[in-house]
Amino acid sequence: MTYCVGLKLNAGLVLLSDTRTNAGLDNIATYRKMFFFEEPGERVIAIMTAGSLSVTQTTLARLQEAIDDEMADETTSIMLAPTMLQVATMIGDTLSRTRREISDQCRELKQSQASASMIVAGQRADGDMRMFLIYPEGNFIEATDDTPFLQIGEHKYGKPILDRVVTPATSLPDAQKAVLLSMDSTLRSNLSVGMPLDLAIIEKDACAVGATRRILDGDADFMQMSSAWSAALRDSFVKVSI
Amino acid sequence: MTYCVGLKLNAGLVLLSDTRTNAGLDNIATYRKMFFFEEPGERVIAIMTAGSLSVTQTTLARLQEAIDDEMADETTSIMLAPTMLQVATMIGDTLSRTRREISDQCRELKQSQASASMIVAGQRADGDMRMFLIYPEGNFIEATDDTPFLQIGEHKYGKPILDRVVTPATSLPDAQKAVLLSMDSTLRSNLSVGMPLDLAIIEKDACAVGATRRILDGDADFMQMSSAWSAALRDSFVKVSI
Repeated sequence: MTYCVGLKLNAGLVLLSDTRTNAGLDNIATYRKMFFFEEPGERVIAIMTAGSLSVTQTTLARLQEAIDDEMADETTSIMLAPTMLQVATMIGDTLSRTRREISDQCRELKQSQASASMIVAGQRADGDMRMFLIYPEGNFIEATDDTPFLQIGEHKYGKPILDRVVTPATSLPDAQKAVLLSMDSTLRSNLSVGMPLDLAIIEKDACAVGATRRILDGDADFMQMSSAWSAALRDSFVKVSI
Repeated sequence: MTYCVGLKLNAGLVLLSDTRTNAGLDNIATYRKMFFFEEPGERVIAIMTAGSLSVTQTTLARLQEAIDDEMADETTSIMLAPTMLQVATMIGDTLSRTRREISDQCRELKQSQASASMIVAGQRADGDMRMFLIYPEGNFIEATDDTPFLQIGEHKYGKPILDRVVTPATSLPDAQKAVLLSMDSTLRSNLSVGMPLDLAIIEKDACAVGATRRILDGDADFMQMSSAWSAALRDSFVKVSI
């Protein structure tokens, strides 16, 4: 399993992903699930991935190959596509094609289907910040002011806190806190979501990856926040009456 | 969908269920999901249900029919079974048989399978309080001091608060608050869980249903608790730092 969450706020984009992958409970590994494609000042594209690792790795490798191709043009390279919408479409098409091929291979061996989904967030110079959730079929939905966050993977445990505190006006420091608390609830409840975490902030109109941070297991700041939040919840629980 | 939660505490049993059933999003109805079989002072058995209504209603009707049968004995009637473990076994067997029959009917029409699960909680005079989660196959697990709560239906949204505040030593008033806050998070996030709610408390060694309460949509106490909890969460969010 996986948990990735992205916020699209007035002030910028805030992204958080875990790194745990598993093929059965007895085969657990750490893989990065957050990737950047960047030409600072011109465009930044962040991709977070959930699902079958063979599908997401192959999709990313194909996107990179298309960028590096000498013949790359605005219809084949996400670094040349004229809009973020076209970037999302190209990623969706690549994901869908890759997923279908790998599922066909799995079917031959009568194994379960391979699937994957992605969050794509970014901005081009002269364009707006945009964030999309791309489904395994290649279609997608976009974050809006009404729903400024998108989640993939194990999304349920971490949703109540986002519902309650995140609006487009949320500041970047508060947003960082919100996604970390959302992840904290998820880590506590689903063993297949695990540390380390990757956190990234992309400020509005920077068109470049801003602060990034890898939060390791046992990180003192994260542990302090996690226990302060537990204590605050227990305090709140005592205060509320029915 | 459904959300039912039961706590087995040193002081007693606390049970909460919603009442929404749906056959598709365009066919929503209200049905009670909490049932009592009681001979005050001798035994009390509470059953909460999730899943296909045809399976749960038929299972309950069969349990009642077996109780009312003139030939009823300790192997057929849950009101005569000598232990709560045997009560759980009998309910599991009845659920499993009913589910299988209805699934077979569905299969003939090529419809999706019918399934259901139940929480069974209660006590007999001279026996301990016990609480079981019965799976569609009829097998079951039991609440223990390590895990004093059981959930059926949409369990994820409401689990973090239970994980954080419920222990066997939790008082009955606090337990009531915990299950209502757990339900509140679930109601906010899943439209197929809905008011009114049924709440029941069975005090240790009473062997009888104690306080019961139906909480209707718009209940002033519940709304006050819900908004106080939201406010407390937002306050806590401001106080926690990272």
